Amino acid sequence: MPLLKSWVASANDASNPFPLNNLPYGVFSTPGSDPRCGVAIGDRILDVQAAEANGLIDLTDVSLFELPFWNDLMEEGPAVWTALRARLTELLAEGSAEQDKVEPLLVPMDEAEMHMPFMVSEFTDFYASRNHATNIGTMFRGKENALPPNWLHIPIGYNGRASTVVVSGTPITRPNGQSKAPDADAPGFGPSKRLDIELEMGAIVGTGNPMGQPITVAQADTMIFGYVLLNDWSARDIQPWEYQPLGPFQAKAFATSISPWIVTRAALEPFRTSTPPREKELLPYLTEPGPMLYDIALTVEMAPQDGEPKVICETNYDQMYYSAAQQLTHHASSGCAMMPGDLLGSGTISGPEKHQFGSLQELTWGGKEPFELGDGQSRTFIEDGDTLTLSGHAQGDGYRVGFGQCTTTILPAVAFPEQGD
Amino acid sequence: MPLLKSWVASANDASNPFPLNNLPYGVFSTPGSDPRCGVAIGDRILDVQAAEANGLIDLTDVSLFELPFWNDLMEEGPAVWTALRARLTELLAEGSAEQDKVEPLLVPMDEAEMHMPFMVSEFTDFYASRNHATNIGTMFRGKENALPPNWLHIPIGYNGRASTVVVSGTPITRPNGQSKAPDADAPGFGPSKRLDIELEMGAIVGTGNPMGQPITVAQADTMIFGYVLLNDWSARDIQPWEYQPLGPFQAKAFATSISPWIVTRAALEPFRTSTPPREKELLPYLTEPGPMLYDIALTVEMAPQDGEPKVICETNYDQMYYSAAQQLTHHASSGCAMMPGDLLGSGTISGPEKHQFGSLQELTWGGKEPFELGDGQSRTFIEDGDTLTLSGHAQGDGYRVGFGQCTTTILPAVAFPEQGD
Repeated sequence: MPLLKSWVASANDASNPFPLNNLPYGVFSTPGSDPRCGVAIGDRILDVQAAEANGLIDLTDVSLFELPFWNDLMEEGPAVWTALRARLTELLAEGSAEQDKVEPLLVPMDEAEMHMPFMVSEFTDFYASRNHATNIGTMFRGKENALPPNWLHIPIGYNGRASTVVVSGTPITRPNGQSKAPDADAPGFGPSKRLDIELEMGAIVGTGNPMGQPITVAQADTMIFGYVLLNDWSARDIQPWEYQPLGPFQAKAFATSISPWIVTRAALEPFRTSTPPREKELLPYLTEPGPMLYDIALTVEMAPQDGEPKVICETNYDQMYYSAAQQLTHHASSGCAMMPGDLLGSGTISGPEKHQFGSLQELTWGGKEPFELGDGQSRTFIEDGDTLTLSGHAQGDGYRVGFGQCTTTILPAVAFPEQGD
Repeated sequence: MPLLKSWVASANDASNPFPLNNLPYGVFSTPGSDPRCGVAIGDRILDVQAAEANGLIDLTDVSLFELPFWNDLMEEGPAVWTALRARLTELLAEGSAEQDKVEPLLVPMDEAEMHMPFMVSEFTDFYASRNHATNIGTMFRGKENALPPNWLHIPIGYNGRASTVVVSGTPITRPNGQSKAPDADAPGFGPSKRLDIELEMGAIVGTGNPMGQPITVAQADTMIFGYVLLNDWSARDIQPWEYQPLGPFQAKAFATSISPWIVTRAALEPFRTSTPPREKELLPYLTEPGPMLYDIALTVEMAPQDGEPKVICETNYDQMYYSAAQQLTHHASSGCAMMPGDLLGSGTISGPEKHQFGSLQELTWGGKEPFELGDGQSRTFIEDGDTLTLSGHAQGDGYRVGFGQCTTTILPAVAFPEQGD
């Protein structure tokens, strides 16, 4: 597919992440205004709440954009998703008959503050990059037992915490927690000393399944509304002490960050790619009827307080062993009801080479191999004041479908309240 | 505290679970009516939505009972919780000046259908009964390694699935899932053959904490709105294959059942009791400033299809090593935001004796010791058509604060949809 030209000139720039081919969905405010739904086009945001109020968007009997979240659209289902995308394309395409009416509804992106684009119903995090699972497994259990025996059969996942999913730009407070050094007699409690990122993609469930009713991979694919960049913050010193036998808990619960723009499944269609060949044949319920991954280039930058950012990781979403559609199918396989607004983290995305590792745990091999950050600073894990930025885009022929950025600064831990306070 | 007498005669019966001392909160409907909030009193339900509409309850500027859930009251906080309980006690006490106005708002309980009493924000399940953890650990890892090394230091928990928490009376469909016999080459997929219960209490978070701000155990105690009986359905053949390394997922995600009446923390005050002496000193953030468990007698009954129920377990909530207040404090210790409507499962409650074990996994020692159910039937795990019923009450001097029952019938597994469907 070539670049689709828009009358918004900046959208036609080959390096702009938001051409007419993209049309990602976000929630924004401008000084003095309440948050509302918007669509990115070039360096502008189309205020779709206003477009609906003006009658320029009129697809359903009910309002889609009354609330500052995209959940109401999700609940309408794929036919309305398609109709909205077609209508937005019509309004913003070069030669649109309605340019005069739409132009006053555009807001400069650099004057907007971004908010959570949707209400997260529940958050599930997976573990589906083979390189990541092998790296972590090698550090925790040794090279021979790196990959758990179920890994090639199950898209392994665990339930995370929805209440602490926040949008890019929200600072994260360093967590407190229990940890125990291998040679210590007893655990201690205090600020995490091994705060880490996990570079992931987040898939957003747009339509659900009834409780008790499993779904096929093909059905799961059509239920996915779109994707965001996702940073699954992790406290590497809390996790090993707490995670046996029931999995990660407070090491992950304190925060998950996402990028502000939902890139729809429709926008990513030209970038579909297949999961790798199976080493072990999958059970039939997990087999993919077609390519269900996407070719999305991903980077992580790290900057010390008042310092310059440095790229510390370059990888691609095509490195996953399981697609989001497979993960969603497995998630519902027991009869678990999935809901509009559920967020599925892909799992950390690591390529085979060291500069392609999606976490500091891997990049510094458990903190043993520090890297240079410039200004004479080096890092193993994250220090207070550091800023981490995820970026991602799919590369088309002369255009990009971009996700924008997910950027976060770390604040110092809070003092724990005294008993009796 | 003695029995508080009500002008609703049935409430003064020593065996009735809902005396004036209790006043639990539920959501009910009668034939032809929408679900609405109600308070149990003897064999009647007070329609509090109607009481608010009539001006008999007028505590806040906003409506508390517009929606058929108790979340709006929770969000008002402990002062309003106390005021409502005082007003309900005034309206329903023997000698009430307003008996004539209240009497028309009472509905016979046996004509009512019960619904979910609150919207579950997120569900977390803990693992806090020492007997249960020791039993399960012995079966999975042997007697010497039964209790994980962190168990005496951390109220271990994992995030569960809120979308499948259902009220007593809702049938549960047997889950499908992956499992692998120890001697098999590869896993298979199909209906669980080891479907089990877990007898638990559920604590409902009434007020939350801001993200990034931990809480003390004393604060956590005041944030708890009330308690329900909770059955954490478990597929024992799915769990051992899937749970390494990230914890239980589809083995638990298909369903969790709760009893319909929220027994408030206020109603349980006279029944406070302490957690047992610590074998290892707890870190200061987890120490309890006073008794935070409750003396609540619990039973499980099992009935085959068209058969008589048999009591298979008798235990008590006082068997827990950690209280819900400790669990909530640990849950927020990393800065995890807890929300009104969050549900915390206590973990399976098992006493030291075999008839006090709160799961079939323990009662039949992993399926090796079947028990008789009457009519010549025996069981290791649950069969289709079986009905499981949890009951619970705190015993006062001449009265009971009862939870009612949590009763569920198991339906056969569904056929998995064909790929391409």
